[in-house]
Amino acid sequence: MTTDPLELHKNLRGKIFIGPKTKIRTIEDLATLYTPGVAKPCMEIAKNKKTVYDYTMKGNTVAIVTDGTRVLGLGDIGPEAALPVMEGKALIMQQFGKIDAIPICLDCKDPDQFVNMVRALAPGFGAINLEDISTPKVFYIEKRLTELLDIPVFHDDQHGTAMVTLAGLYNALKVLGKPNARDVKIGIVGAGSAGYAIAKLLNAAGFVDIVVFDSKGAISQARSGLEDYKLELTQFNRSNFTGQLKDFHGADVLIAASSPGSIPMETIMNMKKPNIVFALSNPISEISIEQARDLRIDIFGTGRSDYPNQINNSLCFPGFLRALLDLRVTRITYEMKIAAAKGIAESVKNQTREKIVPDVFDKKVVKNIFKRVRSAIEAKK
Amino acid sequence: MTTDPLELHKNLRGKIFIGPKTKIRTIEDLATLYTPGVAKPCMEIAKNKKTVYDYTMKGNTVAIVTDGTRVLGLGDIGPEAALPVMEGKALIMQQFGKIDAIPICLDCKDPDQFVNMVRALAPGFGAINLEDISTPKVFYIEKRLTELLDIPVFHDDQHGTAMVTLAGLYNALKVLGKPNARDVKIGIVGAGSAGYAIAKLLNAAGFVDIVVFDSKGAISQARSGLEDYKLELTQFNRSNFTGQLKDFHGADVLIAASSPGSIPMETIMNMKKPNIVFALSNPISEISIEQARDLRIDIFGTGRSDYPNQINNSLCFPGFLRALLDLRVTRITYEMKIAAAKGIAESVKNQTREKIVPDVFDKKVVKNIFKRVRSAIEAKK
Repeated sequence: MTTDPLELHKNLRGKIFIGPKTKIRTIEDLATLYTPGVAKPCMEIAKNKKTVYDYTMKGNTVAIVTDGTRVLGLGDIGPEAALPVMEGKALIMQQFGKIDAIPICLDCKDPDQFVNMVRALAPGFGAINLEDISTPKVFYIEKRLTELLDIPVFHDDQHGTAMVTLAGLYNALKVLGKPNARDVKIGIVGAGSAGYAIAKLLNAAGFVDIVVFDSKGAISQARSGLEDYKLELTQFNRSNFTGQLKDFHGADVLIAASSPGSIPMETIMNMKKPNIVFALSNPISEISIEQARDLRIDIFGTGRSDYPNQINNSLCFPGFLRALLDLRVTRITYEMKIAAAKGIAESVKNQTREKIVPDVFDKKVVKNIFKRVRSAIEAKK
Repeated sequence: MTTDPLELHKNLRGKIFIGPKTKIRTIEDLATLYTPGVAKPCMEIAKNKKTVYDYTMKGNTVAIVTDGTRVLGLGDIGPEAALPVMEGKALIMQQFGKIDAIPICLDCKDPDQFVNMVRALAPGFGAINLEDISTPKVFYIEKRLTELLDIPVFHDDQHGTAMVTLAGLYNALKVLGKPNARDVKIGIVGAGSAGYAIAKLLNAAGFVDIVVFDSKGAISQARSGLEDYKLELTQFNRSNFTGQLKDFHGADVLIAASSPGSIPMETIMNMKKPNIVFALSNPISEISIEQARDLRIDIFGTGRSDYPNQINNSLCFPGFLRALLDLRVTRITYEMKIAAAKGIAESVKNQTREKIVPDVFDKKVVKNIFKRVRSAIEAKK
């Protein structure tokens, strides 16, 4: 296979296709799969809507929905230009999760109209995966859709990243012998989708000392005019730190989901030892592996495939969506997300400083996520 | 394969699936098909929107969109209950036309909202197939979407049925030696989607003596309070016939797209000889094959697979949509529809009274439709 993305995409003209689960061989087959026979399952579903899971593709089908307003790091490039990413995601969902995922690129920037459209197209889908939608609009969209729909609504840019980060953090803390979450001091650089979701998930998982930084500095109650979602983040700032990132000293963990150049070297030099740094910006991480060595970071993770410890969404979403579909989840909870992170973490058998997350091709990951999420649901019953 | 539709649908749980066009084998594959490599085709498309056809699935992908308000003959059974039909259609499109068709069942009954939703989801699709939407709302939806979109909008319940009817009519008239369209007197029973579209297509193809009947009798200028689309049909009523169907005498052709029992026997007994009757209601045709024999109908066609001369949509839509996609058609014209009907008709090599349309499994049909539509487009250049 060529490694030139343009050439490969041009050769393929689409990374997924619609395949037949059966072949129409005779006129009787046609009459059973289509008219007049198809009227029977239609009437059953009309009588009892829930049987749509028994007679159709709904139960295994995910809509990957975007408006193209925040595609990768490329910004608002529109719904057409977002399609290659959605197809890639659908390809990964099929290969790793056996999920039928369909890209839906909506030419619609108004959040309420967007919500209404996704609500309207939900009948044919078993779950909604929101993708590459700008912040903070996407928080509102996710919240409204979760209220309106009886199928799960998953925003991978937030929660997928957060779950893999938590998984990596579990193993990194274990390797360094820092097992008590309440004693870990964490800085998060960037208050976009990923930063916001990481802070919230880490807090739900028992980490109570988290300072999130945006371009203006620490997000604290001392700041005025904060948007609602940033106001939420001030709760985790236990020490009520109000300064700039360069003055943030003594952290055990630093997690950046921002852009290259956003972390002053002195912040890292003033971290506690041993320390953990995740620099998640892609394709160029906030800190290079050479810098990480120079700064003697003990455990270093990035979003990059050419460095060790790749904190990669693809580790999470195929297994997590597989679990949501199979377990017929209607609303995603923090218990499920924490369970999924544990499932990812335990897929690494012998954790080391250079191996805190599993390989994307490791088939155990999907299974372990599924088992952990199922246990979390059973524990709540 | 079982011929019990409920059992078969339950075994399959979906008649189509999302398949991979390529396999992700290495971390380099992942980096080419997904992040960071996928950013390259995204940026190309952002620069020049038309290249979406080069780098994505758009050019081969059709959205089969319904609101579930008029599914088969079952009425307004809702978007979930419509899904088995849409999947069946997608399966047929793949097997016969190699088209990637995706069911979209919208929970939205308002025509303007529906239009807005389909407009918004168009970026990822090469064509829109409207399906099983109630009349007359669907005429408005089709018209508005055709105005708004730069991809073709096809309403199969209207135009698919009309094209196959015209194809059958071409061959039936040839077999009976009635070659001159202007001399053929036609009655159409039923003024729903199919009746309306058949009348319009036949007129565009040169048939000028067409009386359409609804439940109140002939649609003529003598009627008051006619809806716009019915007013349109009065133009084809050359003799300005104003009576009931039972008093409609001397027709060469009678085409019914209504329901069993809608055709009085005396109408058929008073037709010209030799005569042609298409009784398209499904699964029970307006006239049974026994009645057709008793009434000595010369050429008899139905929508049924267990009778000869099956006037079946499936003969048309895979080939017609294949042509629309491959020829990058933006708006469907009557020339294209007439061309497609000729392509279907010529697929029958030796026409007889019992063989006026080709077999659904005849692979020539898709090819002939394509060639004819291409020629029609080239002739207009």
